Amino acid sequence: MTPIRILGIDPGLRRTGWGLISVVGAKLTYVDCGVVTSDGDLPLALRLRELHEGITRVVSGFSPDEVAVEETFVNKDAQATLKLGHARAIALLVPALAGLPVSEYAANLVKKTVCGSGHAEKVQIQAMVKFLMPKAEFKTADAADALAIAVTHANHRGAHALKKLHAPVAGVSGLAAARIAAALAKG
Amino acid sequence: MTPIRILGIDPGLRRTGWGLISVVGAKLTYVDCGVVTSDGDLPLALRLRELHEGITRVVSGFSPDEVAVEETFVNKDAQATLKLGHARAIALLVPALAGLPVSEYAANLVKKTVCGSGHAEKVQIQAMVKFLMPKAEFKTADAADALAIAVTHANHRGAHALKKLHAPVAGVSGLAAARIAAALAKG
Repeated sequence: MTPIRILGIDPGLRRTGWGLISVVGAKLTYVDCGVVTSDGDLPLALRLRELHEGITRVVSGFSPDEVAVEETFVNKDAQATLKLGHARAIALLVPALAGLPVSEYAANLVKKTVCGSGHAEKVQIQAMVKFLMPKAEFKTADAADALAIAVTHANHRGAHALKKLHAPVAGVSGLAAARIAAALAKG
Repeated sequence: MTPIRILGIDPGLRRTGWGLISVVGAKLTYVDCGVVTSDGDLPLALRLRELHEGITRVVSGFSPDEVAVEETFVNKDAQATLKLGHARAIALLVPALAGLPVSEYAANLVKKTVCGSGHAEKVQIQAMVKFLMPKAEFKTADAADALAIAVTHANHRGAHALKKLHAPVAGVSGLAAARIAAALAKG
């Protein structure tokens, strides 16, 4: 089976997290992750250009097959929502310009897929990402979130279903699968 | 004096208006205007790509020297604010990628500059744009708004001040200047 490379993106104007995984069947392998930042002292147009350049570097450097972007959580702070919308537009645009399919996932679906609960804390997401892909090395919550988004897409694309995470499947050792099942049951 | 070409952009996810004017001193000349649309049936990433392609065509086709983009009006509908933010990011990004200076203007400053009142109606803006540049031909309010944004930038860039619109100046005939002054006084 040919591996599918999935790029997850967690957009933010100041910090946009990205995480790349490789998927063969149900086996998830960590490839790389990081954060693209923009300088808060620059005008908005230049900040968006920085994000565009950074995400373009990631997309052309790693040549993902599919891209998944987190949907913006619309909160009461309209200005914050607007800023996120600006960053998110760039995260959607760059892979679309490269002709890649882009999927969008709500934050609570990402949490539910990875942790079993739509209300999981950031630290739980990080623990589960590390758990699913022990080689994953992330320095920031944004990068871990981006990996979680990629994992979510791996489980929802095509015939893949959420329950795959619950059952012992190829590529996840029996112990890990059992621990995942236990963690999900608790969640 | 070398003419300065100013591109005004009124961003919107469904329709992004654009208007190009040429400025020599205080003389404003209409060049062209139009609307870039995106197909509401497409996924968001592809809609943003459509806007990107359309605005890129305008920027590369007309080679403006400076670009002005309307600031998003943050209203109570957070989802609508978010959509506008997505479109606006593309309107800011494209000229920034082309290395052009991008200025941002609040909607009420545009209204105040062009009509003399921050609460002017769309039809007043259209009338004043037509008044300032009789050759302007716009089919939509979005294109007229974009021209108004370009006019606003023409009046606020460098040493240009709002009062220029009030006084009879080179490039605006005495009658027009007087009528503008009268309209502003009423506003």
